[in-house]
Amino acid sequence: MTLLGMDLGGTKLAVALFDEQGKPLHREHIPLGNRGGREVGGLITGSLKTLLGSQKYGAIESIGIAVPGIYHAANGRVWAPNISGWDDYPLLDEVEKVTGRTPVVIDSDRACYILGESWQGNAKGCRDAIYMAVGTGIGAGILTAGNVLRGASDIAGAIGWMALKKPFSDAYVSCGCFEHYASGDGIARTTLVVLREMSSYTGRLRDIPPAELSARQVFTAYSNNDPVAKEVIRLCVEFWGMAAANLVSLFNPGKIIFGGGLFGPATPLIPNIRQEAAKWAQPVSMRQVSFEPSALGNDAGVFGAAFLALKNAGFNQSL
Amino acid sequence: MTLLGMDLGGTKLAVALFDEQGKPLHREHIPLGNRGGREVGGLITGSLKTLLGSQKYGAIESIGIAVPGIYHAANGRVWAPNISGWDDYPLLDEVEKVTGRTPVVIDSDRACYILGESWQGNAKGCRDAIYMAVGTGIGAGILTAGNVLRGASDIAGAIGWMALKKPFSDAYVSCGCFEHYASGDGIARTTLVVLREMSSYTGRLRDIPPAELSARQVFTAYSNNDPVAKEVIRLCVEFWGMAAANLVSLFNPGKIIFGGGLFGPATPLIPNIRQEAAKWAQPVSMRQVSFEPSALGNDAGVFGAAFLALKNAGFNQSL
Repeated sequence: MTLLGMDLGGTKLAVALFDEQGKPLHREHIPLGNRGGREVGGLITGSLKTLLGSQKYGAIESIGIAVPGIYHAANGRVWAPNISGWDDYPLLDEVEKVTGRTPVVIDSDRACYILGESWQGNAKGCRDAIYMAVGTGIGAGILTAGNVLRGASDIAGAIGWMALKKPFSDAYVSCGCFEHYASGDGIARTTLVVLREMSSYTGRLRDIPPAELSARQVFTAYSNNDPVAKEVIRLCVEFWGMAAANLVSLFNPGKIIFGGGLFGPATPLIPNIRQEAAKWAQPVSMRQVSFEPSALGNDAGVFGAAFLALKNAGFNQSL
Repeated sequence: MTLLGMDLGGTKLAVALFDEQGKPLHREHIPLGNRGGREVGGLITGSLKTLLGSQKYGAIESIGIAVPGIYHAANGRVWAPNISGWDDYPLLDEVEKVTGRTPVVIDSDRACYILGESWQGNAKGCRDAIYMAVGTGIGAGILTAGNVLRGASDIAGAIGWMALKKPFSDAYVSCGCFEHYASGDGIARTTLVVLREMSSYTGRLRDIPPAELSARQVFTAYSNNDPVAKEVIRLCVEFWGMAAANLVSLFNPGKIIFGGGLFGPATPLIPNIRQEAAKWAQPVSMRQVSFEPSALGNDAGVFGAAFLALKNAGFNQSL
């Protein structure tokens, strides 16, 4: 059985074929370039047509697609903020024009990340698992009893909005409290605050124009023992630990997988995050959960999309 | 079809018979008295034998039981901290000795509260709904896509452990941050702190010996416009709002039902809690959710247990 997984990102479309054991048979990356709206839809349907027409890797029996935003399962439409014209894009309708009788299933990238990790990554076989994606923004893909948590309108897992520090500040309005402090952009914001407070500091971060300060530069400074970077990372570990603790207490998961652009450089901090979480979380759940980095990295999306396809084809329904 | 619902509490066993439309046919309350361990099991099996032997309300076709603690679905055992000797009680085995071929299903009281409200109460027909129980302690019963959220080891929904106020304090070790501040006991604790801070205060709460201070007295003072009580309730509304916001952002529920001993007197504050939550939560999810008091009050448990029984009998599997 050949499965097709697609992971649409803001800059490229990743495509991969797998057998039903999760062995990759073929991979490709197609840059989006300046495409938007229906051109991006055309890129997807064009690639599907080509692959469905080829028998090189066996007949494709099921298709899964990950999208960078929200997938509305009831009407097959997609909201993807980083693709122009995809406020309410009818992706399922477009795709089904070229897929004929081959079944297609779509879900959010976050959902696919945790499905991928639970199929072939660091949450293998785990039916209650959470993928905490920390990059420019923060979100989570959540599996409960083997199923993706959708909520009443497909927007469950918006963990960037977690309330962790009272009282409320207007700074939280646009992205939520947790994301304000502990996303990639949040690290830059927090660094500016710590720089103001640490007036005696003369290190390299002081010389970077505020608008150019990035999480990457803070991590580089951290690895050089920079005192501002150390304080910023200490604060981030506190927020990541509190947020992870809340996921542990609420969901009682077997695994939390840390991924996204920041894990990456924050991966060696996972034991520190666990130590912070252990202070806050329900103690029995905390002893049972394990915290892991993503095993699949940038490939988690295509793996998860292929696993969606596998489940949709009626195989391996239970994880 | 006659359904039997039982709700075991720390002081009494509530028993009720329903038809499959949720109409109560019979109710009784049996005080536990000084019973513990197997005597409580005997009370349950005795009541079951009597009711199964009677045909007064038609033949009982399915049985559901709510327990005040954690139900381990894998082995049928119960941990119930308020019943002596129920650290790991084999309730399912005991019950099945007397139920013969009549199917039995057991779950936690929190799970039954939200099932009851979704069957016959203020979350009627809602497949994604949360019951936030605030009393001596704080916990939640969570429905996602019509199913009770269990987690990897049946202890999901431990929302009393939510991290809401950093940095960590040793005061949170025994019960969690949210419960420390905003449970019934938390209200008494917070009142002592506010009394210390408000040194000019000469009202009635000052005269109550600290060990005797209760949430009920604080609510009475609040209704008399007492300034200490007003500040305590303001702080509680902030915590309840932040916690509800986190449930909204993470689960995207259709309804949150407020119940437990404090709702009750805190019910008129639900609009204030909503206002606080709306500052913090994912805005689209927030607009879609409604916050409601429990419709079933102390009966939510027997209704939920009967609905468990109905689902287990294969009827109305989907909410």
